[in-house]
Amino acid sequence: MTAQTARIMDGTVSARRVRSEVATAVATMTQDGHPAPGLATVLIGDDPASEVYVRNKRRACSAAGMRDLHRHLPGDIGQDEVAAVLDELAANPDVSGILLQLPVPAHLDAEALLARIPAAKDVDGLTPASAGALAQGRPGLRPCTPAGVIRLLQDHQVALAGTEVTVVGRSVLVGRPMVQLLTEQDATVTLCHSRTRDLDQVCRRAEVLVVAAGVPGLIGPDAVRPGATVVDVGIHRTEHGLRGDVDYDRVAGVAGRITPVPGGVGPMTIAMLLANTLRAARIQAGLLP
Amino acid sequence: MTAQTARIMDGTVSARRVRSEVATAVATMTQDGHPAPGLATVLIGDDPASEVYVRNKRRACSAAGMRDLHRHLPGDIGQDEVAAVLDELAANPDVSGILLQLPVPAHLDAEALLARIPAAKDVDGLTPASAGALAQGRPGLRPCTPAGVIRLLQDHQVALAGTEVTVVGRSVLVGRPMVQLLTEQDATVTLCHSRTRDLDQVCRRAEVLVVAAGVPGLIGPDAVRPGATVVDVGIHRTEHGLRGDVDYDRVAGVAGRITPVPGGVGPMTIAMLLANTLRAARIQAGLLP
Repeated sequence: MTAQTARIMDGTVSARRVRSEVATAVATMTQDGHPAPGLATVLIGDDPASEVYVRNKRRACSAAGMRDLHRHLPGDIGQDEVAAVLDELAANPDVSGILLQLPVPAHLDAEALLARIPAAKDVDGLTPASAGALAQGRPGLRPCTPAGVIRLLQDHQVALAGTEVTVVGRSVLVGRPMVQLLTEQDATVTLCHSRTRDLDQVCRRAEVLVVAAGVPGLIGPDAVRPGATVVDVGIHRTEHGLRGDVDYDRVAGVAGRITPVPGGVGPMTIAMLLANTLRAARIQAGLLP
Repeated sequence: MTAQTARIMDGTVSARRVRSEVATAVATMTQDGHPAPGLATVLIGDDPASEVYVRNKRRACSAAGMRDLHRHLPGDIGQDEVAAVLDELAANPDVSGILLQLPVPAHLDAEALLARIPAAKDVDGLTPASAGALAQGRPGLRPCTPAGVIRLLQDHQVALAGTEVTVVGRSVLVGRPMVQLLTEQDATVTLCHSRTRDLDQVCRRAEVLVVAAGVPGLIGPDAVRPGATVVDVGIHRTEHGLRGDVDYDRVAGVAGRITPVPGGVGPMTIAMLLANTLRAARIQAGLLP
């Protein structure tokens, strides 16, 4: 284990800051006579991991002064019944944002369900319409995890304009929207994946390296340019505890800045969900264009 | 002027091949009792350049055995009236594909009009829904110019899987969808733009270089790795005739393969429009999933 040279980018600190900004803005909205933003989390069935995720989102929502409009649906519910619930939430003016917790039970068509959430209430930023808006550079709600990475980098004054950034992993949830958000920030972005020929070499030219490959410990010190900023989106339960896609102990001796796992990108995801819900509510209230 | 070493990738040859494939498939469809695919080009006003583009598309459509369902609307038409025409075409089973020629007159909202074209008939691949499908890796009709670049590379046996590709230009029409299509082909893609710090150096690492910057002669020999494949999407009317974004005379002495301007990517765009219209018609006829 080399000596740690990298400064830690603590996501819990940044996330706390975002949540506090949201809480302040919610308080201002309600003082001005607007209803508090409402987040409708939709959980189908009893998957324990999903229950934990949804509970954390609901708590964060309430803590920020928003209305928790949770809906728990039975695991054997039919496609049409879920669709009807989503349509009702879409039409309900109390609901600022709708989050359909994934995965849904296998007998349901998640894609068709997501497509029913109107872009204006898509606080997860994952519907086809939101993806289209991002791809075409139009305004819209952005996916929470990549938006959280941008915010974390901004909070640490990491320059992105003109910067060489490499993103590892081309998932629809993280890697692909990450490329688009970084390009919007004027970075020069390279997207790597499992078919990339010399991954270490492509990563080593990056001043900022964002890893969302879903492979524990994939990125070692040979893939990191000395002084680079390394953001680890991966999270894996291993026999040594929670680990990311980056070999933290060794990379921390090469990088200039690094996110820990846990406590890096993870907390930013829920914080950006709250920021999206606030944004949706403000647009719906006519407070934002 | 250096000696030309590069092999020319002739878009007129590839485009002719695509158009002939489409014509054969259209003939088979009609022999099997299906109606011929129908393309509805919608031209608003009397812009001479747009008239030329639309005429070329209509001719190509007829030459491939498809039905030319052109609609010419007056330049002072209102938003609601154009919307009504698009809705009528969307509902008309004779219409396989709808192409709204851009730009539309300034008093119209092009974005709102495009959004009325259903994804299944969006043969230009430019609506928000089509962009979302591409961004999320779902099936759909792809934008014609970047799809034409992929086809041209494939016709010349240019390997893309694991290949280092640099795309110059982040336009919604070409650069951004180009990155997504190349990523789908398993290339390792870097997207450059006006804010990229050392453009020549980033281009020089590419085995395949796709230039869609809209800047005449932007790419010179210093930006090209010896032996690389260079695709020039730019087209500009200059005092020396039509020129691309690539300094062809000098780059042809360094590159391994290069597209000419004119006669490179240009002819592929209309060919892919026909391929998209055929594809839309086959899906609508239940011949493709």
